[in-house]
Amino acid sequence: MALLVCKFGGSSVATLDRIKNIAARVQKLKHEYQDVVVVVSAMGDTTDDLLVMAQEIGNDLSCRELDMLLSTGEQQSAALLALTLNSIGIKAISLTGWQAGIKSDSAHSKAKISAIDNQRIRDEFKQGNVVVVAGFQGINCGGDITTLGRGGSDTTAVALAASLKADRCMIFTDVSGVYSADPRLVHEARKIERISYEEMLEMASLGAAVMQPRSVEFAMVYGVDVEVRSSFSEEPGTIITEDDGMEQQKVVQGIAHDRNCAKIAIFDVPDRPGIAKALFTSLAEHKINVDMVIQAAMRDEVNDIAFTIERNELNMALPVVEDLVKEIGASGMSYGDNVAKISVVGAGMKSNPGVAAAVFTALADASINIQMISTSEIKISCIIEESQVTEAVQALHNKFDLDK
Amino acid sequence: MALLVCKFGGSSVATLDRIKNIAARVQKLKHEYQDVVVVVSAMGDTTDDLLVMAQEIGNDLSCRELDMLLSTGEQQSAALLALTLNSIGIKAISLTGWQAGIKSDSAHSKAKISAIDNQRIRDEFKQGNVVVVAGFQGINCGGDITTLGRGGSDTTAVALAASLKADRCMIFTDVSGVYSADPRLVHEARKIERISYEEMLEMASLGAAVMQPRSVEFAMVYGVDVEVRSSFSEEPGTIITEDDGMEQQKVVQGIAHDRNCAKIAIFDVPDRPGIAKALFTSLAEHKINVDMVIQAAMRDEVNDIAFTIERNELNMALPVVEDLVKEIGASGMSYGDNVAKISVVGAGMKSNPGVAAAVFTALADASINIQMISTSEIKISCIIEESQVTEAVQALHNKFDLDK
Repeated sequence: MALLVCKFGGSSVATLDRIKNIAARVQKLKHEYQDVVVVVSAMGDTTDDLLVMAQEIGNDLSCRELDMLLSTGEQQSAALLALTLNSIGIKAISLTGWQAGIKSDSAHSKAKISAIDNQRIRDEFKQGNVVVVAGFQGINCGGDITTLGRGGSDTTAVALAASLKADRCMIFTDVSGVYSADPRLVHEARKIERISYEEMLEMASLGAAVMQPRSVEFAMVYGVDVEVRSSFSEEPGTIITEDDGMEQQKVVQGIAHDRNCAKIAIFDVPDRPGIAKALFTSLAEHKINVDMVIQAAMRDEVNDIAFTIERNELNMALPVVEDLVKEIGASGMSYGDNVAKISVVGAGMKSNPGVAAAVFTALADASINIQMISTSEIKISCIIEESQVTEAVQALHNKFDLDK
Repeated sequence: MALLVCKFGGSSVATLDRIKNIAARVQKLKHEYQDVVVVVSAMGDTTDDLLVMAQEIGNDLSCRELDMLLSTGEQQSAALLALTLNSIGIKAISLTGWQAGIKSDSAHSKAKISAIDNQRIRDEFKQGNVVVVAGFQGINCGGDITTLGRGGSDTTAVALAASLKADRCMIFTDVSGVYSADPRLVHEARKIERISYEEMLEMASLGAAVMQPRSVEFAMVYGVDVEVRSSFSEEPGTIITEDDGMEQQKVVQGIAHDRNCAKIAIFDVPDRPGIAKALFTSLAEHKINVDMVIQAAMRDEVNDIAFTIERNELNMALPVVEDLVKEIGASGMSYGDNVAKISVVGAGMKSNPGVAAAVFTALADASINIQMISTSEIKISCIIEESQVTEAVQALHNKFDLDK
């Protein structure tokens, strides 16, 4: 009587041939599981194509209308997969987000799921149907179609798994799991069998973009075990699950890196209360996300403040910072977009104080200069020269024996 | 406080440029009408493209899933028109069929509207919104999306006009109205200002395919005045309305013709009860629509039976008829697809017994042989050689002074 919720992304359903492959995959899964929900994204570039068309109309578009437009992509792929399943003799029915009972708030284009009424899905199970659900969408209390933002189909799958108390939630994707480092950089990178939600969040938000952080958070909150695996092969993937703390943990799970970084430094900031607030409030008002912040209180009356932002937001951020430099009476600023962030992630480092020292040693031995450092309970991040990313990831991967 | 429901077909919304034209058109209409509903079809070939994709999956497709797939086309064009209206400063919101409260039965792919809950539309009027409704679709009592079949967007518009008690229902289309004959055949063909529902039905079902007969019937049942007019020009169109019988009526409104005809004759059919029933039941079981039927009871014991069908159904019909010829012991059969039907339509002929004679005289004077005749209260139809259609339509148009 096992219940499976699985999700296939846009590239897995990009053509009718690929949809046929997915259907064959679902057929196999249906032998293992009594009840199956398949969440699908829109075919390949459908969403982007629709968005480009809308953008030809103008700027400042109504998000409510965009959601109406974009949600059709998933509805189409869901119907096509249901038809394809039928064609190979599997009873199946497609449901839109609202038909699947996915209620959301009204934040069009980035709505959050607020509740799920899974009655219709359970009724379809009773009819023996595989239920194909259009991902990425819901309905608000006013009866309007919403979309759940980037990675929304992952969230749909995790939320349905939570609501239906699924035995397993599988996210089928282009990659075959979460790796100890990017296999394109580190040849010996190893697929991680099990990773905790917290570790996955650190890996995900640091550039190992297998699953969107939002859907990992959702899985963590509802305690849904998620397996990330390949659409194109049968090998097992990575299971994202609770950190049960009982098992012998690896101190470090993996090395993540993120090139989407830029650094800004402000010199000789007067040491007055409210200065940092003014700076970061101003950036937030311009919707610029600040990541790492370092304030070096070396001298009595002035400080240097440095911080990192996403690289593609640098051009937006510079005029804001320049204005502030004048306003607060700092002596000047500098910036650079040739930096990257590398991060060592592992739940085990909570109880292993030597990890930071090992990180700095490994980087020093490889002659890599550390520009900024930031740490959390389960992560150590360093900003370095972008040109040294491969060397750095390789050095850290070796240092912590992650190929074993 | 006037209320308008208008509808734009697929070619009117085929590109973003055309959608911009429609938006400008709606802007003008919004000056004349307090509340405006715009029903749209899918962009250009969208529906056909989706259908072709589905047909690659296989035959015998689930109509429920096809409706799920095809209904996205209208949802897209509705959202794009709402966005375009916004971009020129007009408040507008798009609604799917189910959001617009269009309930239907469960006959997927050819559903009939069963009820309309127009609360949402009236709420949007209160917000000052132009309401753009995705045509061609509804929702059944089980919460599944249905489509209304060919001409479904016309039906959506007429049904909404009836439900909202609209002051006017405008169907914008490729042609500028209903003509006294096909202008491609008869240079002097004149646009008809007003035509009764019954006359329009005869014109429509006889090949003057301006509006689908189903939506004309719907307008007749609910007494909705419909104006058919051009998307591309400002000139007034043709108003389809009740035959009030008070005005001085034209005896003949127009001459319709239909080349989609084929004729089958069966010779020496034994004159026994049940023979005709066997023949036409058998054709109906094969979903072949029989139009005109003539039985010539010239002799005592045997008859000849001739009938017409749609030309594209001839290949399906022939084996059915051949089997029947053997079964009932007829002496043989013949068929021809080089025939066409011309029809003289006018509510006034009810009280003018000379019309039939005038029709036959006009055709005889033009040396056109009449192969079959069928009449109703407001129509006289003749089957003739297809090669003589233009001459026949011209001759009848002249005979009844329809250019005046």
